[in-house]
Amino acid sequence: MKKYTFLLAAFALMAFVKPAIAQQKDPATFTGAEAKLKHYNALYILNSNDDKKIKGTLRNIDNAIEDPRLKGKLHVELVAFGDGVAVFMKNGAYEQALKDLQAKGVVLAQCSNTIRERKIDKADLFPFISYVPSGNGEIIIRQYEGWATVHP
Amino acid sequence: MKKYTFLLAAFALMAFVKPAIAQQKDPATFTGAEAKLKHYNALYILNSNDDKKIKGTLRNIDNAIEDPRLKGKLHVELVAFGDGVAVFMKNGAYEQALKDLQAKGVVLAQCSNTIRERKIDKADLFPFISYVPSGNGEIIIRQYEGWATVHP
Amino acid sequence: MKKYTFLLAAFALMAFVKPAIAQQKDPATFTGAEAKLKHYNALYILNSNDDKKIKGTLRNIDNAIEDPRLKGKLHVELVAFGDGVAVFMKNGAYEQALKDLQAKGVVLAQCSNTIRERKIDKADLFPFISYVPSGNGEIIIRQYEGWATVHP
Repeated sequence: MKKYTFLLAAFALMAFVKPAIAQQKDPATFTGAEAKLKHYNALYILNSNDDKKIKGTLRNIDNAIEDPRLKGKLHVELVAFGDGVAVFMKNGAYEQALKDLQAKGVVLAQCSNTIRERKIDKADLFPFISYVPSGNGEIIIRQYEGWATVHP
Repeated sequence: MKKYTFLLAAFALMAFVKPAIAQQKDPATFTGAEAKLKHYNALYILNSNDDKKIKGTLRNIDNAIEDPRLKGKLHVELVAFGDGVAVFMKNGAYEQALKDLQAKGVVLAQCSNTIRERKIDKADLFPFISYVPSGNGEIIIRQYEGWATVHP
Repeated sequence: MKKYTFLLAAFALMAFVKPAIAQQKDPATFTGAEAKLKHYNALYILNSNDDKKIKGTLRNIDNAIEDPRLKGKLHVELVAFGDGVAVFMKNGAYEQALKDLQAKGVVLAQCSNTIRERKIDKADLFPFISYVPSGNGEIIIRQYEGWATVHP
């Protein structure tokens, strides 16, 4: 019985040491210093067809990627909805800037609701983009997945 | 004494098994796959009286609620402040759209600071809305409560 | 041996009571009621030179600081980038409002990318502001540090 009690106590010790260690590695509990080692995800939001706003957003993404505090550690997705669909139109002026960002790993995502509501033909958009069910759903889900969001 | 020690060890076991289980259910530690099962909260922000912006925001809320990834799992609050108070004015054109969203569970919240600063009579706003001390405080507190925020 | 087992069980108890208490104090696990006791951080974002937008943002910061739910518990940083640099220009009309906010603990931060890209002389900006490598990096990093963000 004595040995049994000893084993039970040892088991109790093992059972809780493991979760305690796992918890220390949870990203949510990282301190500022530890945060410098980790990976970042950011969702950029564009819902305007204003040329200055579009160019500013694309430049902002590049600035974030090149920020010395984030360089090599940042993954970016750009989601366009509403008037923001303009950035992905073949007749627009953003093809090269988009390809440059895509070459740096940026995911380009168009809201499917927008093109359905506006009866936009996918053939009029660049073939190298991807689609999400709704831009607004994407914004909410990404935040719940821990992503930062930026709406310049 | 042996029994006493055994009981103590058993007690130690019970005391920690419970928090460990509770911790596994903490939304902050959900993985992507588990996240699909959970509940989402989103705060929509409106601080413009531009008709296109207002209609776009109300439509965006509906798009998020209907997103197949969020359907039946999303609770939304719309907070208006500054010029955004226009959406709740009786003389505006948004009563039906607001009632439709409210019927889907959307909470409609007006910033009290705005109506005090602008000397707006509550009688000029729809009787079915609610009030928060400040729209800006709401934005900050909701994020600390884990809500997603969307400012179309 | 009996005593030894007892001590081991007691040790196991102590080893896990402490982490359990620490965990209860983790901000990420606070419930609504407990949240009222804690500290809040908010990053305000300004990337417009529109006078109404600038004044609105500065007033919004003050409203958040004075919100009864946040009063005495909120730390604010204002980051300006792109056209938002206007708020920190010596030839602008915002010196007193900025000094009032700074007196309430608000940190005033300018994006270094913006002044480099636009060839703005730091001597043309108020001497009492600080600088961050990029406004966009700041927005992402602060969110990963748990800060709320507000872009009025």
